[in-house]
Amino acid sequence: MKMVGKYENYAEWYLDMVEKANLCDKRYPIKGMNVWTPYGWKIMTLIDSFTRKELEATDHGEVNFPLFIPETEFKKEKDHIKGFDEEVYWVTHAGKNELDVRLVTRPTSETAMYPMFSLWVRSHQDLPLKVYQIVNTFRYETKQTRPFIRVREIHFFESHTCHDTEEDAQCQIEEDLDMLDNIMDKLCLPYTLLRRTEWDKFPGAHYTVGIDTVMPNHRTLQLGSVHHYRTNFSVPYDITYEAEDGTHKHVHQTTYGMSERLLGAVVSVHGDDNGLILPPAIAPFQIVIIPILSKKSTVDVAGAAEALRDKLAAAGFRVKLDDRDDRPGSKYYDWEIKGVPLRLELGGRDIENGVVTFARRDTGEKGTIAMDSLIPGTQLILDDIMSTLKAKAKAFQDDATKAITSMDEIPKEDTSELRIYSFGWCGCEECGHKFEDEHDIKILGTPYRPEGKFEGKCIVCGKDTELQAFAARTM
Amino acid sequence: MKMVGKYENYAEWYLDMVEKANLCDKRYPIKGMNVWTPYGWKIMTLIDSFTRKELEATDHGEVNFPLFIPETEFKKEKDHIKGFDEEVYWVTHAGKNELDVRLVTRPTSETAMYPMFSLWVRSHQDLPLKVYQIVNTFRYETKQTRPFIRVREIHFFESHTCHDTEEDAQCQIEEDLDMLDNIMDKLCLPYTLLRRTEWDKFPGAHYTVGIDTVMPNHRTLQLGSVHHYRTNFSVPYDITYEAEDGTHKHVHQTTYGMSERLLGAVVSVHGDDNGLILPPAIAPFQIVIIPILSKKSTVDVAGAAEALRDKLAAAGFRVKLDDRDDRPGSKYYDWEIKGVPLRLELGGRDIENGVVTFARRDTGEKGTIAMDSLIPGTQLILDDIMSTLKAKAKAFQDDATKAITSMDEIPKEDTSELRIYSFGWCGCEECGHKFEDEHDIKILGTPYRPEGKFEGKCIVCGKDTELQAFAARTM
Repeated sequence: MKMVGKYENYAEWYLDMVEKANLCDKRYPIKGMNVWTPYGWKIMTLIDSFTRKELEATDHGEVNFPLFIPETEFKKEKDHIKGFDEEVYWVTHAGKNELDVRLVTRPTSETAMYPMFSLWVRSHQDLPLKVYQIVNTFRYETKQTRPFIRVREIHFFESHTCHDTEEDAQCQIEEDLDMLDNIMDKLCLPYTLLRRTEWDKFPGAHYTVGIDTVMPNHRTLQLGSVHHYRTNFSVPYDITYEAEDGTHKHVHQTTYGMSERLLGAVVSVHGDDNGLILPPAIAPFQIVIIPILSKKSTVDVAGAAEALRDKLAAAGFRVKLDDRDDRPGSKYYDWEIKGVPLRLELGGRDIENGVVTFARRDTGEKGTIAMDSLIPGTQLILDDIMSTLKAKAKAFQDDATKAITSMDEIPKEDTSELRIYSFGWCGCEECGHKFEDEHDIKILGTPYRPEGKFEGKCIVCGKDTELQAFAARTM
Repeated sequence: MKMVGKYENYAEWYLDMVEKANLCDKRYPIKGMNVWTPYGWKIMTLIDSFTRKELEATDHGEVNFPLFIPETEFKKEKDHIKGFDEEVYWVTHAGKNELDVRLVTRPTSETAMYPMFSLWVRSHQDLPLKVYQIVNTFRYETKQTRPFIRVREIHFFESHTCHDTEEDAQCQIEEDLDMLDNIMDKLCLPYTLLRRTEWDKFPGAHYTVGIDTVMPNHRTLQLGSVHHYRTNFSVPYDITYEAEDGTHKHVHQTTYGMSERLLGAVVSVHGDDNGLILPPAIAPFQIVIIPILSKKSTVDVAGAAEALRDKLAAAGFRVKLDDRDDRPGSKYYDWEIKGVPLRLELGGRDIENGVVTFARRDTGEKGTIAMDSLIPGTQLILDDIMSTLKAKAKAFQDDATKAITSMDEIPKEDTSELRIYSFGWCGCEECGHKFEDEHDIKILGTPYRPEGKFEGKCIVCGKDTELQAFAARTM
């Protein structure tokens, strides 16, 4: 069974990988709503566990809000509802009754949470308020759906915070970005932080920082975002606090969220033509052991393989012993598709030599680990797989980014020449829209943390500018 | 602030406890859909962690199915839809479009899962199929709602299995009940297993075993259930397998589920007039440390309290140091309401004596633990709290159950005389309905695992019978 080439036809390769590794089942009878199968769900919950760890370590409390939002609450912030009006599912009946107030299934939880925040926040002593939830959310996507990347029921986390001042809210954004860096480190994914354009920011936000990564087809995928709301929601939802001087003020708010697209990115960025390659931190099985049985050998390979598994499991590794009655080659093939980072093969000769043979999923490198340094030897390889995946993905992203000074450098259609583009922009909406429309491309924004000073000319109007922008075709 | 008495007015006491311990917030603008606040959610996730552990240990794969079920799938099993027809929420619109096929938000996932099982199960080698999910589910309750006990968005787990034979499905029921016992042990909750009457079994089930526990008002609360479906669903959903002899057969199915009612039962069964009493296994904080500062003392109590916390945390206890600038008495009061099982008080004299003073939440007993046996000493007390809670709850349940031979023994209204009743029943529906209707009481069923042989007369018609039944007013 020949796989489709990742760089020849990314779209087809991706669907093929998701299906062959059995991460989800797309045959559920509602388009864009897929079934999480155990293997895919396990990876997602490992990703969630890192998210949860970061949020708990920074004193966010985990909450769980109702899924339904009354239409009356949903419509309080006008820009927000405009942004979601065409994307929400409406619950109109319960049992045989028509509901007096229609309900929305959350597309995100601002309008569910903020009426409660208005009750929870009374005084400056209640601030900052920091909560998060990991839940399912709903968007009626009209574009073509794709597992994990564009779905109609989305697994995601969202954190919401309230602060006494704009500055304190700004510090929260910085904390969010530190957490982000720790999470992405576990996924071995590079990313960019771009402050979105005014016309692309989140409905209701003061500003939005988009978190993007580059896909094999050189399109970008937004993995999540961080938003500073200032008082844009606290005014309509009446979230105020009594300051130390006795005056009542509106809180400043932020949110931060990322979705199951993280898994879509892991599959896309690290995988190769033989299957997934999972970063050890989020692999359901970090190690698979294949016993190499031989009728000629008198060594108890099966017993030794079990002992090996127990030893590795006791040291905290997630390990699978594949003792199915099947050829080793067939097992290699299965676990390569599933992306298990490290394969250990154990045969009679290995046992006699006091070693175990290993094969790395990422580089294909083979070698042996001495049994008397099994645990540190294994850890060393898994650590090196993490570093290698990171370096490779970073090199790909760097190579995919190109500085341009003329719009002519952008191919009209998607070709192998397509890149993520950096260029000068005067910052005006007119030039921005012109750029986007002429090349069917999106301005992702301007660097949230610029590296040094930029000097150039606006790629559209030619004016001198210190503003650098990035643009890409998006997934 | 005087609390309401648990046994004087259970209903009011319960609401008061849930609010004062801040387990959820009922002020969300949809009736019966409450917000899980961090403390309540943390207890629930600890309960879930034990559920997950049991299901993983018995080779159930965790899945996550879409929330929405198309009306067409939902209506395939006729008894099932009849059971839920008046209880489901209907999604009829998405964006500005009316949907071609209306969608139900799952009241339970048989009709979501079984079309997929029909694709997943091909041969006897695919069996048994064992999966579970921990999700939110929806019922349009028309009765009065009550936090955790009767809500419209319900947090629950559901496991679903497919087997080649009815006997293998029956073994699954036994496995489910073993898991149940382990989970209930962590919650220190006694329970009964009663095979529900024909008219009360789950819609579509061959038989249903209800899992009940007794509330302080002597009404029973159903915490969950286990169902044997035989082929009642596999026929309409066409879930077949190829047997070893080449014939195609329908699978036998079971399900098992319990909900957030587990938390409602923990609050109700263990709490007292001063607040919650949480079993250590599911307490977000098993231990709270209160430093007793004194201006006269030269001992560094604050530093010693931090060292004490770190030592207990390093040993794996969930521990909170309450170093707020407040009176110890006020702190005691707060943590008593929250149900923290063990309070440690540390003052200058304790430090000089090489001890820490403890107070048990369950019995109020006070004493000291020698610092040089801190870890085993603490563990011993927490273990004893678990045993004491179990014994007390079991004694209450035993006392609440009464064997009767005449229907006259049942009070017409709820009084302190109300009990759970055991009696002889001929088994016929007519006698069953007559019994239930005359006394506004429900037959919970007949013992799933009878203790010895029963001989008596039907409480309604007087016929000799070997069937014992249990009845109660339910929550």
